[in-house]
Amino acid sequence: MRAFIFDVFGTCVDWRTSVAREVAEVFPEVDALGFADAWRGEYQPAMERIRAGGRGYVRLDVLHEENLVRVLDRFGAHCNDLSALNRAWEKLDPWPDVVPGLKALRDKALIAPCSNGSIGMMARLARWGGLPWDAIVGADIAGDYKPKPAVYLRSAEVLGLAPGDVTMVAAHNDDLKAAQQAGLRTAFVARPEEHGAGQESDLVPNGDWDIVADNFVDLARRA
Amino acid sequence: MRAFIFDVFGTCVDWRTSVAREVAEVFPEVDALGFADAWRGEYQPAMERIRAGGRGYVRLDVLHEENLVRVLDRFGAHCNDLSALNRAWEKLDPWPDVVPGLKALRDKALIAPCSNGSIGMMARLARWGGLPWDAIVGADIAGDYKPKPAVYLRSAEVLGLAPGDVTMVAAHNDDLKAAQQAGLRTAFVARPEEHGAGQESDLVPNGDWDIVADNFVDLARRA
Repeated sequence: MRAFIFDVFGTCVDWRTSVAREVAEVFPEVDALGFADAWRGEYQPAMERIRAGGRGYVRLDVLHEENLVRVLDRFGAHCNDLSALNRAWEKLDPWPDVVPGLKALRDKALIAPCSNGSIGMMARLARWGGLPWDAIVGADIAGDYKPKPAVYLRSAEVLGLAPGDVTMVAAHNDDLKAAQQAGLRTAFVARPEEHGAGQESDLVPNGDWDIVADNFVDLARRA
Repeated sequence: MRAFIFDVFGTCVDWRTSVAREVAEVFPEVDALGFADAWRGEYQPAMERIRAGGRGYVRLDVLHEENLVRVLDRFGAHCNDLSALNRAWEKLDPWPDVVPGLKALRDKALIAPCSNGSIGMMARLARWGGLPWDAIVGADIAGDYKPKPAVYLRSAEVLGLAPGDVTMVAAHNDDLKAAQQAGLRTAFVARPEEHGAGQESDLVPNGDWDIVADNFVDLARRA
């Protein structure tokens, strides 16, 4: 049985409005969507230091909490329980097609998140949204962050599969490009509202991906 | 939410009669239970070389296939498709209390296998037996084999939990002893038929375990 592995933030779940909802509960006076965007804006720089070797591997939960401190400061907000607010990233709603699509795909393949999120985050996120994963692969398995090739290769390896028997699914062309270069198959599903109404990135596929699907239910049909 | 992590071979699944069933299909003339015992007999020595540092980490799937070659030779048997027969270890029946017990426990805690088996083996085994895991931790996460402390500690870490918030469940006292020394909580469930009628080991708990349960349904009640 082959496998489909999935980017999660943006591809499976709507992190932006979900994080904003949690922020609004704690800080009703703050621009919650702006806060969510700022928090997510710290994501790539924090991982980049680790990818570049300037810092040993640290789980994304920890990076998120460090980033939260900076964003709180920028918004002039104060939070008594950082780790409770940090769990906003474990309460992200799946896009409506995700659960039915994954359930259908599960009849044809093993399915697992291949996220930069930790195994614990992914497990709690699966509970929150009812995501029926067979396993969890990704950054924690490799001790490094996507798009480093080790994350895709090690994820295939621990599943006991050759890279060519694994399809990476993402709403982000750069994730698929890295997966393809590592020898995996690729599937693109656009998420034009990930960044809100003004989104300009990743509206269309811009590589030679093996599958381009409208949503996860369509993906299951084409798989 | 705390976590319960589980030994799998023997504790969750009846490897001996299940492997024997697969062996009997390929070699009707061979003593299938003897073959299963001999194959399992190669398990600890193969891992011990890795635990002792004499060999880098190799997934259990690979060790099982190397061990199979030796056992086939000893039984004077020939097999054209080693990897098909090796998948016997992904077709192991759970003990009857395991699925109802895990489903009940899942209301109280995250549940995950902490096995020396690989993530792929565990995912396919979960499909075979309907085991409702939240995540898969264990040897592949640590790049080493139980009872090395890194396997228990790293499993707790990737779940984002302190060792004391994780309970190791096993039918083997030595597994629990190592988990306890690493700072985890412990639960013992006897499996007096794991090795067949003549079993003499692990019939009773022989340590100060936090929980001693009759079976997994009882475990869920006591958790």
